[in-house]
Amino acid sequence: MSVLVVGTVAFDSIETPYGSAERILGGSAAYFALAASLFAPVRVVGVIGRDFPEEYIELFTERNIDIAGLQKERGETFHWRGRYHEDINVRDTLELHLNVLAGFQPHLPESYRDAEYVFLGNIDPLMQAEVLNQMRAVQLVVCDTMDHWIRESPEDLRKVLKRIEILVINDSEAKLLSGYHNIVQAARAILKMGPKVVLIKRGEYGVLQFSDGAIFATPAYPLEEVFDPTGAGDSFAGGFLGQLARSGDGSEGGLRRAIVYGSVVASFTVEDFGVKRLAKVGLGEIEERYRSFAKLTDFHT
Amino acid sequence: MSVLVVGTVAFDSIETPYGSAERILGGSAAYFALAASLFAPVRVVGVIGRDFPEEYIELFTERNIDIAGLQKERGETFHWRGRYHEDINVRDTLELHLNVLAGFQPHLPESYRDAEYVFLGNIDPLMQAEVLNQMRAVQLVVCDTMDHWIRESPEDLRKVLKRIEILVINDSEAKLLSGYHNIVQAARAILKMGPKVVLIKRGEYGVLQFSDGAIFATPAYPLEEVFDPTGAGDSFAGGFLGQLARSGDGSEGGLRRAIVYGSVVASFTVEDFGVKRLAKVGLGEIEERYRSFAKLTDFHT
Repeated sequence: MSVLVVGTVAFDSIETPYGSAERILGGSAAYFALAASLFAPVRVVGVIGRDFPEEYIELFTERNIDIAGLQKERGETFHWRGRYHEDINVRDTLELHLNVLAGFQPHLPESYRDAEYVFLGNIDPLMQAEVLNQMRAVQLVVCDTMDHWIRESPEDLRKVLKRIEILVINDSEAKLLSGYHNIVQAARAILKMGPKVVLIKRGEYGVLQFSDGAIFATPAYPLEEVFDPTGAGDSFAGGFLGQLARSGDGSEGGLRRAIVYGSVVASFTVEDFGVKRLAKVGLGEIEERYRSFAKLTDFHT
Repeated sequence: MSVLVVGTVAFDSIETPYGSAERILGGSAAYFALAASLFAPVRVVGVIGRDFPEEYIELFTERNIDIAGLQKERGETFHWRGRYHEDINVRDTLELHLNVLAGFQPHLPESYRDAEYVFLGNIDPLMQAEVLNQMRAVQLVVCDTMDHWIRESPEDLRKVLKRIEILVINDSEAKLLSGYHNIVQAARAILKMGPKVVLIKRGEYGVLQFSDGAIFATPAYPLEEVFDPTGAGDSFAGGFLGQLARSGDGSEGGLRRAIVYGSVVASFTVEDFGVKRLAKVGLGEIEERYRSFAKLTDFHT
């Protein structure tokens, strides 16, 4: 089964208490694709500018990520600049330049249109919808969003929510979208908006999965050193949907194990700047940490 | 095995978004004793004023909690007044009247001095040490503390930490005590101060257990309605140590299961004001929710 992702491919300039990096590869589609490609074939839909360097393209091609849908446009690549606090869970956006993303119209290559699994990364809900419109055989749609779209494009977002199976969203955004402070009430309200499953990302506190009949709760993998949390959420989504595509197991247990795989991939991502660790990690390390994760949470031993 | 607790027995006046209550039973020793007594015999060391009502005494005696060590002094009972925000995880202390607690000197009745399990609730570390001084056969000491003692009595607290096996502490206080922002680094630093095990309480996000060789991470039981979070931490400690006393199992697995029991007891406590739900819950309900908890976190199914 192959996975299609639409999202941003970006330059990130990042400051953390441990150092800084300029114009490194970032964006939701980049993190997702590198993560998901550990498990399954991945096709990327997105836009880059003429300034996008060949070495970043090679990071994709080394993982056999299909970039036929990565449009190169006249102009500069989307650029985000952010700074993390001493408390690494807090960050400020210092600069945001949409550049070529401003006029982006996704066009799926013919070879993409039969993909069965789709991740709608955090972009304008109108672009997310446009991708779905061009697909022919989609079986499972996973969607992310953020506070900006919840506030500025609520109606477009609501329409997308009716067309997806799984919403991946962080806890503060789930509260914003639903209007509830309590996360269980928030998730139940979101389930009524369309998705069959809601995954609440809680950063270093882990993930909650809500569906009609069940709740699954899992902590995050505890790390002694978090260098750069950028891309953790998209790496999680990539590991999650990649594992679902690999296993073909959409049962409750299959979803739960995919969540743990997603958490494991995200735990590698944050160990170094940008995609540095994620681009190097192998499936053997993933499987090993998955087993550690099982020991970490087991109390029947 | 019997459990001894020293801590506050208090009047709490509480406002939450769901209502308010005046001068209801509160305090670390009260919550701990009601929780632990579900699993094992409990003896309370503390102080109350002449204004302490008989009906609250009856809540203890109905659970067969031994109050021979609950000293009644001339003056008024310790009184705390607090208000919770719309986001129920945030609270302000509005009033704090130490009253009889100000001059409290713990004196253990002769019948208490052979208790094997001790919980040093959140009081002055000098009083915590004084309780340990009077005990003859102690096997396992669990200790709680708070930001006030970390800031105001760091040396007294450090001496207590050298005499205990398990520290139960919330995450912001663990960071304050250790000077580390990262919770894994914070816990490792605290382990060097004396305790063999550190339990980090993260409220609605669950609990982390650190020891020399292992980490255990567990989420909290997700609740649709949290009426009053007061006493959740002490109920957790009571369920935890009560279960250890009941099982006598201090292995890694035994500690982990005790953490889940503690989390389950705390999840009942917050369902109603003060000790209302905790005082009524039965062991059958506890065991049932323990089984739900196991399903909630299982991904091998």
